[in-house]
Amino acid sequence: MPDIPQKARSFQTQVLVRFADCDPAGIVFYPRYLEMFNGLVEDWFRTELHSSFTEIVTNRGWGLPTVHLEVDFVAPSRFDEMLSATLTVRSLGTSSMGLDIVLLGPDNLHRVRGKVVLVFIDRAAHQAIPWPNDLRARILAFQASG
Amino acid sequence: MPDIPQKARSFQTQVLVRFADCDPAGIVFYPRYLEMFNGLVEDWFRTELHSSFTEIVTNRGWGLPTVHLEVDFVAPSRFDEMLSATLTVRSLGTSSMGLDIVLLGPDNLHRVRGKVVLVFIDRAAHQAIPWPNDLRARILAFQASG
Amino acid sequence: MPDIPQKARSFQTQVLVRFADCDPAGIVFYPRYLEMFNGLVEDWFRTELHSSFTEIVTNRGWGLPTVHLEVDFVAPSRFDEMLSATLTVRSLGTSSMGLDIVLLGPDNLHRVRGKVVLVFIDRAAHQAIPWPNDLRARILAFQASG
Amino acid sequence: MPDIPQKARSFQTQVLVRFADCDPAGIVFYPRYLEMFNGLVEDWFRTELHSSFTEIVTNRGWGLPTVHLEVDFVAPSRFDEMLSATLTVRSLGTSSMGLDIVLLGPDNLHRVRGKVVLVFIDRAAHQAIPWPNDLRARILAFQASG
Repeated sequence: MPDIPQKARSFQTQVLVRFADCDPAGIVFYPRYLEMFNGLVEDWFRTELHSSFTEIVTNRGWGLPTVHLEVDFVAPSRFDEMLSATLTVRSLGTSSMGLDIVLLGPDNLHRVRGKVVLVFIDRAAHQAIPWPNDLRARILAFQASG
Repeated sequence: MPDIPQKARSFQTQVLVRFADCDPAGIVFYPRYLEMFNGLVEDWFRTELHSSFTEIVTNRGWGLPTVHLEVDFVAPSRFDEMLSATLTVRSLGTSSMGLDIVLLGPDNLHRVRGKVVLVFIDRAAHQAIPWPNDLRARILAFQASG
Repeated sequence: MPDIPQKARSFQTQVLVRFADCDPAGIVFYPRYLEMFNGLVEDWFRTELHSSFTEIVTNRGWGLPTVHLEVDFVAPSRFDEMLSATLTVRSLGTSSMGLDIVLLGPDNLHRVRGKVVLVFIDRAAHQAIPWPNDLRARILAFQASG
Repeated sequence: MPDIPQKARSFQTQVLVRFADCDPAGIVFYPRYLEMFNGLVEDWFRTELHSSFTEIVTNRGWGLPTVHLEVDFVAPSRFDEMLSATLTVRSLGTSSMGLDIVLLGPDNLHRVRGKVVLVFIDRAAHQAIPWPNDLRARILAFQASG
């Protein structure tokens, strides 16, 4: 019996485009999309991975820097628009992970598609460290299996 | 006799890391690097291409959205550090261009390496339009030839 | 019979402190509180005054610049904290209004207290114009009477 | 012989309005003026007070939070405009100081006038501490005497 590819569990949320996010051309200033990406990862950690950034960065002395980024800005977004954000895990290494992030407009069309690579580090040493086992297990639930 | 690859003319400037750019981990919050990229492109247009963003966006009704981005965040930057930014033209199409951007730390090591694709548009129509001839000529001076 | 002071109707919402809002000292970078103020005014207009910023700024050519600001930063806020924001109307002029904004921490203590004055303008002329009657009526519902 | 009021020594610098600073109305989004204020204070500390924010915040464990703010946004600024910023010391307490900040447009007219109160703190204790003597002496040079 063939393997049935399992659909990845995804993390989804809504992001309202703020006046503060928009530039004189009336559309989202692209660095602000990356703030949205960061907010999405924060929300995912807090609500699904039971591990807030406060816990990670402030209390534990760990860090989670973004080391690589690839983004397609497919279509512009305007303020007051509610975007739908979806995050899935593309790959999980010893101390890194690759995420796919998609932002859709209210028209359900792609606005932004991104690939982000984050690395789990010890901040004092600024060195990659392995994911803690419980965190790794929770992240895996969001990865597609083939 | 073989072609001798010509070195691209590059645009260089300095960027001071501000308190405002840094996150609770004490390093540049990565979306702020993209603001630096945008500032670098602005400075290049104003000082070398004789074509300010005001002229382009406000007076002419054109736009210059970033449509694609690839960035490696190689090493963290801390506030009060002066970064050296270098911009070169990788490719120039009918209405797009690919830029290479590198930010070096005071230690001369790579902090951030990015590839950015910008498209020249008519904002009202939100449609790509060809580079004006004079602007194209000035951009070409910053492109390496093989 | 004495006038009985009526309690002002207030607009209340929650604001999550983001990693993006915090500085290397680990607390909210104060200009980001002002972004929260702006977001609060946006939310109030959209949900209670039936008049989105898109409608006002993009479609009608009006504007709502902040012309005066007084803020006390009473105590620091840290990231992942959920702040409670409250907005009331202190005064309503022909084309201006004064707002009181308070941000409370999860401990119910004051973090930030602000007074903001906004002016309703025609953007092309950059000149104050009277509030439209329907908007004025809806704003008045949020003002305390003596 | 009467006391002749001495003119305060002021700190002056230039601030370019960036695309990133502007909103869909095409003018500086007011929270970004406060980033400019913060940058101005940083520059003053680094260049005139011989005491960088890195030294203060990162190395010494001190802090310099803004606790009070009063700002008049007199006229809008547009991007690509070069603003002239001037900072003077209005008052100097045991562990606080009051600054006056003015931003002028290229037309030499007031764009923004602000009063800022900063407090010198020990960050771990989050408690006000007296200015170090050398720093106090250097700040005093920027205060008007009557």
